[in-house]
Amino acid sequence: MSGPTSEIETLIEMMARLPGLGPRSARRAVLHLIKKRGLLLMPLAEALRQVGETARECLTCGNIGTGDTCAICASEKRATGEICVVEDVADLWAMERAGVFKGRYHVLGGTLSALDAVGPEDLRIPKLVDRVAAEGVTEVILALNATIDGQTTAHYIADRLGAGVRVTSLAQGVPIGGELDYLDDGTISAAMRARKSF
Amino acid sequence: MSGPTSEIETLIEMMARLPGLGPRSARRAVLHLIKKRGLLLMPLAEALRQVGETARECLTCGNIGTGDTCAICASEKRATGEICVVEDVADLWAMERAGVFKGRYHVLGGTLSALDAVGPEDLRIPKLVDRVAAEGVTEVILALNATIDGQTTAHYIADRLGAGVRVTSLAQGVPIGGELDYLDDGTISAAMRARKSF
Repeated sequence: MSGPTSEIETLIEMMARLPGLGPRSARRAVLHLIKKRGLLLMPLAEALRQVGETARECLTCGNIGTGDTCAICASEKRATGEICVVEDVADLWAMERAGVFKGRYHVLGGTLSALDAVGPEDLRIPKLVDRVAAEGVTEVILALNATIDGQTTAHYIADRLGAGVRVTSLAQGVPIGGELDYLDDGTISAAMRARKSF
Repeated sequence: MSGPTSEIETLIEMMARLPGLGPRSARRAVLHLIKKRGLLLMPLAEALRQVGETARECLTCGNIGTGDTCAICASEKRATGEICVVEDVADLWAMERAGVFKGRYHVLGGTLSALDAVGPEDLRIPKLVDRVAAEGVTEVILALNATIDGQTTAHYIADRLGAGVRVTSLAQGVPIGGELDYLDDGTISAAMRARKSF
């Protein structure tokens, strides 16, 4: 049997470890890259190297930037009194795309999970408590996923922060464009309980 | 709005151009890579560079190897009298994984397609005709996909090669482990027409 060369085999194995790609799609992606060597493969290798050399975790909030302090923490335009707590950098990017929050962030790096043995010290929770005290924060917005682990983590953080600061969370309800017929019962109940005068 | 850094944005855009990845899964993959910088990101950049520098298309059959002649065309252990015609290098790899063919290959690089204006000269069909004459080939096995374009291409090649060489194609029928209830009508009809004594 004489399949891919060892260099290609190595590349396929690495690509297959990316989330969203399995062995089969990794093979397809690698063949596509080889076909577009000049346009895609070499530029991708260079882009990876650049990100590998420049990307740094912000020491304050856990966002990914190019130095010890990310662009958001460094910006004087961002309100210092509000911290939006998210699970992951991808969630921070989603919030920024929505463009609705003008304060600063705190990236937990995951959620509490008894099953996976993730405790508060494994996340950036102690650092959040420090920041709330040190930065004169007046509101902490918990923008965690509406999953069981996300909500457990939200409750834990709210308890831990205590009464000295206002803690809020994203509203739950029918998503924009959502059709009731396609929504789960939990979302409909939440939207019903949180109903507003029209 | 302050999302990913420009280096990360560039990397996400490139990853999103891979087959099987869209913008959202490219973002997830890039964050995963950044988290595993030493274990995955830098080695992946290096693996890409290596493949970019070593991968070459075989001048004889179109397979991807590391020189002008691929390992299969160069091997003296492979029968020279049989050529297995495949659409793509991924199909060649699939045949090699099955380990059932001991001859050499010919990679067309696609199928004839009136819609996409792909004619015989756009594929490696003239080269196949030359090889059949020059290499003393006795059998050409058409291992093309069982799609309309694949079968059109198979008919065209069989016509073009003429009567001087035996032209065969892969059998069609029920796949191993296949349940009749889940198979399409075309496959069942083909399997019925090609039925064998038990």
